[in-house]
Amino acid sequence: METIALDLMGGDNAPAEIAAGAVEASSEFGVAIMLIGTKDALDRHASGARLNDVSIEPMEATQVVGTTEPGTNAWRDKKDSSIAVGMRMVKEGRAQAFVSAGNTGAISAVSLFELGRMNKVERPAIATLYRNETNKIAMLLDIGSNVDCRPKFLLQFGEMGSAFMSKVLLMERPRVGLISNGHEESKGSKLVKEAHGMLKKSDINFIGNVEGFDIIQGGADVFVTDGFTGNVVLKFAESLAGSIFNSLKDALGSNVLTRASKPLWGPPVKSVARQWDYSAVGGAPLLGVNGNIVMSHGRSDASDIKVAIGLAQRMIRERWHQPS
Amino acid sequence: METIALDLMGGDNAPAEIAAGAVEASSEFGVAIMLIGTKDALDRHASGARLNDVSIEPMEATQVVGTTEPGTNAWRDKKDSSIAVGMRMVKEGRAQAFVSAGNTGAISAVSLFELGRMNKVERPAIATLYRNETNKIAMLLDIGSNVDCRPKFLLQFGEMGSAFMSKVLLMERPRVGLISNGHEESKGSKLVKEAHGMLKKSDINFIGNVEGFDIIQGGADVFVTDGFTGNVVLKFAESLAGSIFNSLKDALGSNVLTRASKPLWGPPVKSVARQWDYSAVGGAPLLGVNGNIVMSHGRSDASDIKVAIGLAQRMIRERWHQPS
Repeated sequence: METIALDLMGGDNAPAEIAAGAVEASSEFGVAIMLIGTKDALDRHASGARLNDVSIEPMEATQVVGTTEPGTNAWRDKKDSSIAVGMRMVKEGRAQAFVSAGNTGAISAVSLFELGRMNKVERPAIATLYRNETNKIAMLLDIGSNVDCRPKFLLQFGEMGSAFMSKVLLMERPRVGLISNGHEESKGSKLVKEAHGMLKKSDINFIGNVEGFDIIQGGADVFVTDGFTGNVVLKFAESLAGSIFNSLKDALGSNVLTRASKPLWGPPVKSVARQWDYSAVGGAPLLGVNGNIVMSHGRSDASDIKVAIGLAQRMIRERWHQPS
Repeated sequence: METIALDLMGGDNAPAEIAAGAVEASSEFGVAIMLIGTKDALDRHASGARLNDVSIEPMEATQVVGTTEPGTNAWRDKKDSSIAVGMRMVKEGRAQAFVSAGNTGAISAVSLFELGRMNKVERPAIATLYRNETNKIAMLLDIGSNVDCRPKFLLQFGEMGSAFMSKVLLMERPRVGLISNGHEESKGSKLVKEAHGMLKKSDINFIGNVEGFDIIQGGADVFVTDGFTGNVVLKFAESLAGSIFNSLKDALGSNVLTRASKPLWGPPVKSVARQWDYSAVGGAPLLGVNGNIVMSHGRSDASDIKVAIGLAQRMIRERWHQPS
């Protein structure tokens, strides 16, 4: 049975939804969860969870990292935060993965200090997984870990993304695209043009430059970009999809007859909204550190946490990272 | 009466939809249109248009710029393209604005050579106008003219965007935000951090860093970014909104009962789809060149062209650019 360390304190809905997600995941996936939180939070949530006859072990951390705390401060000042304790559980082999919906900057920073980088990787990257319009899983990275990139970082993002998709998600020769302002090789910033040359010479299935619309339309399986562009696009995507469905809800609810016919249009609209909910795949692996680390969205509810734990379990089983 | 030069040859639906848009705009807005195209296209479209008793004057150009032709080549090799002729009409004062749905790189390049930059402007920028979720018009720039930017370019994008929104769209003290990966001043790429310092010291209403979700949620009136990020976000936005409505159409049409109830849910869904159609505002002004230039989307139909001409008319009336 895999043991997954879970940050009870991270995210907008912590600790209640995190604990609920742990219970769901443990019973559904048959994983052991090491629930890491303050004594108070554990008393209130881990004891209740244990009653459900699932395998949840409480683990105390005395500190909590705030959502806006700079990552390096979180490491310097809080050696006993739930994030730091979780990383140490992975480092010591007491857990094979760590899942957190907490401060992404802190998770990145602490992972570097506690676990270190994978062999030859210059910069770890946060990779988001989502479903494109053909309902196929695709990856976009980096989404915020490295705002200023060198060409070689982008090359490595492509290599790591390709490796993850084939090893963990069992995709054959994933198509890796480099996000640019045009498909032509001549298009792109200085950074993109140099990275293009490096990716072309690599062993992965590099298909060249891709554009903004390819991200949704399935123009590649792995979309490589710097953490600045990736972060802007991701946040934009989340808000755009959310806004469209809010507008729809308002418009469909504004008329008595339309409202009355909700049993007819409600289910299809709801299912489409779920398809376009970017948290649906649930969980962004942190690639390039020595450990299986999954970040979950700050807004995660129990079901999102469950999905992130499922991804962590898959990473363990497919041996994304194996302790040496 | 304003005279607006219109590129009959530019865009996926040229020349038929362009000519139709000219007729609509001329009769609705009372502007004179100078329709610029090849003899053949003019024979087929301008003569028919003239019959409608609107003020449309044909103007011959012997060359046409292809959609993928590099901008500088288009200038070097085609001094008599519809784009070059249009710019010269503006330069010579025979038209007060030029509207084109053609190759944006070519329009940018030719405008620089024919019209030159406005006083003190280092790099012109393409600004897109759209409606945010509160249905208010907002601007995003640059969307592709400058992929590698210096901090001062971003400062000037903010200044030009602010001037356009207040002068042409009569907005009071437009809020200018700098797109970054976090609201905090400490967040951003090296470029963004330096531009932040400059924008802070400027006279415009700079509200600091904004994030991807602010673009939709109305977190600023003018969103400043480099042409690489702007281009990726814009293309992504267009495809995401389109894909969501396609999914909805499929889902709502897949069931007999739901399909039969279309009179109930159809109109609200359609109106929301229109609100989220990024071509709805129709027309992206090219800011920083000596002339009133409006780019229309390559996919423009007659109605989009009409809207772009309306924007050009407004730019003339509010004296965005005045010939010296």
